[in-house]
Amino acid sequence: MKIPEVLLIAVEHAPGRLAKVLAVVGEAELTIEGLSTVNRTQDKTIWELTIELNEETELDLTCRINALGFAQVLGMSDRVFTQHRGGKIETKSRITINSLQTLRDIYTPGVARVCLAIQKDPKLAQDYTSIHNTVAIITNGTAILGLGDIGAVAGMPVMEGKAALFNDLTGVSGVPILLQTKDTEEIIQSIKAIAPTFGAIQLEDIAAPQCFEIECRLQEELDIPVLHDDQHGTAVVVLAAILSASRQVKHNLRNSVVGQIGLGAAGLGITRLLLQYGVKGVVGADLNPEAITHLEKMGGKGVSLPELMQQADIVVATTGVRGLIQPKWVREGQLIFALSNPEAEIEPLLALEKGAAFAADGKNVNNVQAFPGLFRGALDAGAVRFTDDMLFAAAEAIAENTPEGQLVPNPLDKSVHKKIAQAVCQVGKLHEAQA
Amino acid sequence: MKIPEVLLIAVEHAPGRLAKVLAVVGEAELTIEGLSTVNRTQDKTIWELTIELNEETELDLTCRINALGFAQVLGMSDRVFTQHRGGKIETKSRITINSLQTLRDIYTPGVARVCLAIQKDPKLAQDYTSIHNTVAIITNGTAILGLGDIGAVAGMPVMEGKAALFNDLTGVSGVPILLQTKDTEEIIQSIKAIAPTFGAIQLEDIAAPQCFEIECRLQEELDIPVLHDDQHGTAVVVLAAILSASRQVKHNLRNSVVGQIGLGAAGLGITRLLLQYGVKGVVGADLNPEAITHLEKMGGKGVSLPELMQQADIVVATTGVRGLIQPKWVREGQLIFALSNPEAEIEPLLALEKGAAFAADGKNVNNVQAFPGLFRGALDAGAVRFTDDMLFAAAEAIAENTPEGQLVPNPLDKSVHKKIAQAVCQVGKLHEAQA
Repeated sequence: MKIPEVLLIAVEHAPGRLAKVLAVVGEAELTIEGLSTVNRTQDKTIWELTIELNEETELDLTCRINALGFAQVLGMSDRVFTQHRGGKIETKSRITINSLQTLRDIYTPGVARVCLAIQKDPKLAQDYTSIHNTVAIITNGTAILGLGDIGAVAGMPVMEGKAALFNDLTGVSGVPILLQTKDTEEIIQSIKAIAPTFGAIQLEDIAAPQCFEIECRLQEELDIPVLHDDQHGTAVVVLAAILSASRQVKHNLRNSVVGQIGLGAAGLGITRLLLQYGVKGVVGADLNPEAITHLEKMGGKGVSLPELMQQADIVVATTGVRGLIQPKWVREGQLIFALSNPEAEIEPLLALEKGAAFAADGKNVNNVQAFPGLFRGALDAGAVRFTDDMLFAAAEAIAENTPEGQLVPNPLDKSVHKKIAQAVCQVGKLHEAQA
Repeated sequence: MKIPEVLLIAVEHAPGRLAKVLAVVGEAELTIEGLSTVNRTQDKTIWELTIELNEETELDLTCRINALGFAQVLGMSDRVFTQHRGGKIETKSRITINSLQTLRDIYTPGVARVCLAIQKDPKLAQDYTSIHNTVAIITNGTAILGLGDIGAVAGMPVMEGKAALFNDLTGVSGVPILLQTKDTEEIIQSIKAIAPTFGAIQLEDIAAPQCFEIECRLQEELDIPVLHDDQHGTAVVVLAAILSASRQVKHNLRNSVVGQIGLGAAGLGITRLLLQYGVKGVVGADLNPEAITHLEKMGGKGVSLPELMQQADIVVATTGVRGLIQPKWVREGQLIFALSNPEAEIEPLLALEKGAAFAADGKNVNNVQAFPGLFRGALDAGAVRFTDDMLFAAAEAIAENTPEGQLVPNPLDKSVHKKIAQAVCQVGKLHEAQA
């Protein structure tokens, strides 16, 4: 997995010099993610350069840049760490506590009235507590991002990031919960024990295949929505991206065979959702025979990679393996989504060159498009579970709000998250009314 | 238990009329908690009257007030419920997410750097996550306020109140956790499973005697501070009040025998803390023989109520039974803390009349004085447990900051909470340095 590193570089003023510094970075086979001015003095500018770095890469960039003579690496910037200092989230009071009367209203003795009212009519908890605006973001740290089993505490920055996005994009209160157990039964029992605290549960970065049983059992045994984001959140965004692309190249999705390369949590989630959405069929490839068994239980078919490329009209790859798709396998008219980050299974331009009707990588296909609106909508509907129709509604709302020529909307556009939430809520309410 | 009720009353303008309305309330044996103007028109004022009402009391006040002719009860105010609408707390992002670069820093891919740094050096979680600013507020709803076993969800408004106060008074992030189990072992295992999420744990409103084993086991098995607030938070405030009173009447606390009436979670917590603080002895009275066994294990002695009043220099009562202490039992020079709310075991004025050197009821003895500073201090010290010295430090800081003639400081005075936190932190750091 590649992660961004931020360098501070002083470059003397003169036309063409910044370009020469960036050329050195390019020669080192490093992709530039961001560049901004930190300071500008009379004779030089200090730049903050964000690059994607392999964990293993020895950083000899410093020598190469300093060798230019007119530029000097001043050191690493701690921009990312600075953003994280002190944590990214906090619990805030929604009430200004500025008088003893307010204290007596919100704490003892006044609070007793509200407690008794809820005891008599538990539905009042929806109005007078924060439970129904709160989503638990639960991980045991076994599959954090692409980093693997790094432990729940090391995964906390991801969970806090989700909570920060929940708050910012749709006003949901996200509460990270780090689980100190890898035992399936213990995980399920612990989550069930604390479930009354929350309006919904987002399972996060729990390794396959354990994640499947945990999610399934919790969905059965709890009366609030439970969603494993790595499976279904990602699937919703991929479905949205496929819908956008199909619309752009006038491709008929329901008539298509989809080839899913990589059958981890995300790949199986995508497979399941596309089959339910009604594609003609899904063929899948993975080195792990257990994953193939999972696929075939869902109604997909396990094939080899070349067979998959031969049979699929739409190819989705989520393997993390750079360049896995050989250009010669690409067929005329295929839609290709090589979603591994930061390096795709095939470069989109190369795929287009080989005849693909559409090709994209995973740079913009991020589950932040889906989860805030999915949960906001489910909470607002008072839903007891996520249904496939709710997931479809989210995917369609994302696709409908995608600007022409784009694959997905701007992930920070709150008006889009609101529309997704409304679409999910509408379907969710319909289900509750029918139940 | 008495709980406040809020009435809206329109009273025509004329000297003496409001007094007459209040006289009717007094004749109905109801105590007035608050009175404020809601609206004032040309000929009348609408008052919001907060009274302490027994759950059982039939409210014939309306008829009596309306019978005055110049006043009319317009209905109940929903002031308390309005404060609670939508819940009292929320998770907020500490970061403004206004650019894709910020999104990439705090979420994928930037967050991976922070995750890996914490994986390599877990101590960094202290700086780069919110874990060490976060306290779990955990209940299973078996002893909510004086209301008994009303269930965890009905207890949520109390937990949210604590979280709101944590945030407002000392900047701690409080996260309510409602447990759906009454099994001691399940409670312990569930809390242990989620413990890595938090910097400390506040157990809350869990019934005795279960609360003793749960707290004790968690303190042994976790490496973060665990405190059952009903026992120790209350004990700290009571010790502080005794210290303030002793200073005012120049009484020597360490030379005193304390009589503790009522040996529930609070009473036993008070007993334990006073014995550790070094009073001469504690005699206790309770109808429950199991409570007496607990008391004697701690080094106290079970006696009858008249014996207790005979032997104790300082009397503390936490029974919830109005008028339990007969005036004839009061001895010359005794210090009496009849703490049950809203009606004391003996009225302070009556106790003073009978010769007590000092007497107070529980109106101002509220654990909100202690818990925000206790936890802030323990978190700031990086403490792995609460020690008695930390509890003493809190009690002494509260007493030192109590204005002359008062029993405790203003609970909303943030500067006092800060001083309490500093005192606790200083002792906590000393312990960590010695460990």
